[in-house]
Amino acid sequence: MFNQKNVALGETRSSIRELFEYGRKRKAEIGEDNVFDFSLGNPSVPAPKEVNECIKEIVDNTDPVLLHGYTSAQGDFSVRDFVAKSINRRFGTGLDADCVYMTCGAAASLTITLGALLTPGDEVVVPAPYFPEYKIFTESSGGMFVSVQTIEGTFGLDLSAIEKALTPKTRAVLINSPNNPSGAVYDEKSIKDLCALLKAHSEKFSPVYLISDEPYREVVYDGAEVPYIMNHYDRSIVCYSYSKCLSLPGERIGYIAVNSEAEEKGKLYAGICGAGRALGFVCAPSLFQRLIVKTDGLVSDISIYKANRDRLSSRLTELGFEVARAGGAFYLFVKSPEPDAKKFAERAKSHEILIVPGDDFGKEGYVRISYCVSPEMIERSLPAFESLAKEYR
Amino acid sequence: MFNQKNVALGETRSSIRELFEYGRKRKAEIGEDNVFDFSLGNPSVPAPKEVNECIKEIVDNTDPVLLHGYTSAQGDFSVRDFVAKSINRRFGTGLDADCVYMTCGAAASLTITLGALLTPGDEVVVPAPYFPEYKIFTESSGGMFVSVQTIEGTFGLDLSAIEKALTPKTRAVLINSPNNPSGAVYDEKSIKDLCALLKAHSEKFSPVYLISDEPYREVVYDGAEVPYIMNHYDRSIVCYSYSKCLSLPGERIGYIAVNSEAEEKGKLYAGICGAGRALGFVCAPSLFQRLIVKTDGLVSDISIYKANRDRLSSRLTELGFEVARAGGAFYLFVKSPEPDAKKFAERAKSHEILIVPGDDFGKEGYVRISYCVSPEMIERSLPAFESLAKEYR
Repeated sequence: MFNQKNVALGETRSSIRELFEYGRKRKAEIGEDNVFDFSLGNPSVPAPKEVNECIKEIVDNTDPVLLHGYTSAQGDFSVRDFVAKSINRRFGTGLDADCVYMTCGAAASLTITLGALLTPGDEVVVPAPYFPEYKIFTESSGGMFVSVQTIEGTFGLDLSAIEKALTPKTRAVLINSPNNPSGAVYDEKSIKDLCALLKAHSEKFSPVYLISDEPYREVVYDGAEVPYIMNHYDRSIVCYSYSKCLSLPGERIGYIAVNSEAEEKGKLYAGICGAGRALGFVCAPSLFQRLIVKTDGLVSDISIYKANRDRLSSRLTELGFEVARAGGAFYLFVKSPEPDAKKFAERAKSHEILIVPGDDFGKEGYVRISYCVSPEMIERSLPAFESLAKEYR
Repeated sequence: MFNQKNVALGETRSSIRELFEYGRKRKAEIGEDNVFDFSLGNPSVPAPKEVNECIKEIVDNTDPVLLHGYTSAQGDFSVRDFVAKSINRRFGTGLDADCVYMTCGAAASLTITLGALLTPGDEVVVPAPYFPEYKIFTESSGGMFVSVQTIEGTFGLDLSAIEKALTPKTRAVLINSPNNPSGAVYDEKSIKDLCALLKAHSEKFSPVYLISDEPYREVVYDGAEVPYIMNHYDRSIVCYSYSKCLSLPGERIGYIAVNSEAEEKGKLYAGICGAGRALGFVCAPSLFQRLIVKTDGLVSDISIYKANRDRLSSRLTELGFEVARAGGAFYLFVKSPEPDAKKFAERAKSHEILIVPGDDFGKEGYVRISYCVSPEMIERSLPAFESLAKEYR
């Protein structure tokens, strides 16, 4: 008598959540310090101290009726104008306020964007490994989810795999760089090649949009550059969230930016406004809309993530594991030493190490290790990884 | 090439928004004080001062990683537990934390609830006048929107009209009391009669849920009582928002409460979790989840709304208008002195009075006047209402 798809979705917790809940129980049994929980992508570095200062300043100095009142559905005009100008300054684009739609975070950015783009039966092509919710969001918007493999080992874009997946029903390609779960950052050449491919396909068949989900844009290491897709392709949409750069994932604030050069920009933006309305979003949280104007350019102290990455990836390599070189985000994607990564993850569990099999991200034979944890936990976990490695010698 | 329904929805602004935008332009032309804008339902009374104090206190005294981090998708456990106990204390129910799902406000409460309940083709019965988004939310969830008339003049429930509208495909009845736009509060007898009707229908056909959307629960006057539907019907769901009681509409915080007595409660709650996930809500804003625990029981100073209602409704009555007696919310529903309320609203516009035709709320021949405005604007508007009345003598 209920919507069976949604009941099933609610009953089958994602295996990431499942593992996290297991971890909670296990910690209660054997002590917090004895479980090495690498399951979740919850930022472990606090928000920059300016965030809380700005919240207090905004609360003290803004008329409360205005501060806590509804903004326009697409976001406060001055906020959207600010975001557009900030993007233009950083990436040389030509956006205005009506290219920007403020959202309750990246998930909302995606469901609203897909709601605007897709008619039932339209296809969305997504390189694997991918964030598992992409499949759910695509299907709940009536679309067909088409996953394509990336290059083994680096997890960079495999252009010929994408080319083969494109059909006249392809409405969008959805990329995520820096990538969750692989940490891969797609370089400029591969973005250019992808865009050339999509341009040719759009001319031959019907227009394909390139969606870039980039909550990890600022979480990059060793000077990695994340190309801005709007500079390479007109029919492009950036889905952004402040969750990771400002360590605010629970506050739900992000945006959709539509390329001003997209031929059908007006209709697309109207579709975004319509989808946001139909899904019940009303407006992005007003206090946090104001906050992101005051904290523009600030980034949480990602040097802690970098130190975690370096420590964990060099030790795991020493222990004989194959670790993908991660240019960004806060995940290591590690090759399972046995073919079935689920079995490997189960074995890790017996050493109190909680890691997620790549199967959930559309990529078998790998596990994801979230290193957005305390450096102390990384140190404590190393002997457990050592015992785990011994089992495979 | 886009989703045409959502493009159309984005292109046709609601006429309330349209009027509000007109008002903005008109104010720029002839001065802020010379336009009498009664179009929007944006609380004009500030949040209780404790709200901002609590925000600062929470920010100062909570670990920032915890404070701004993800909560469980259904809301932080301690927050849900608190809300369940608060409902139990006030209404004598037996809810626990797993009956409560925290949301980004009432609109989200509704889209998630309808997403859980409806399979394409299911019908939702809604008494008119109704909040226009109900139709959009129902249809975007795949449901059929079935509106039924209420009792002329009082806008109380018309049980025989509801009975006629029920079919084997009816999955839910959605009520809103205190009502937007009529201000009507459904009394206990009519709620009891409605529940008896739904019980009989559920036994004969398939189960019907009663959804109560009640963001205006605390905005009542003259001691009006709003019955709690869970005390009268097991298959019941309350959609709540703190937008109006705490004057926080932009911050997006509310909840869904599922009756613990509902036979299929577990499946329904799973459907709610699934729908929330599929729509991209992730979690309700974490700072505001914590806030509502600290501000439980506080209500903005609604005496200002009451004074506005009394002043405006008595003066309009003196001028010969027929004004429905409003027990709650912050709207007057006034009979149009000519059959076409759209023409009346247009004529009011020529006197710089902005009011919304009832047609948009599924009820012709009436206009909605939002009196959540400053008492000064009410005073300034009275001569304009007088000139408007003269046109109909």
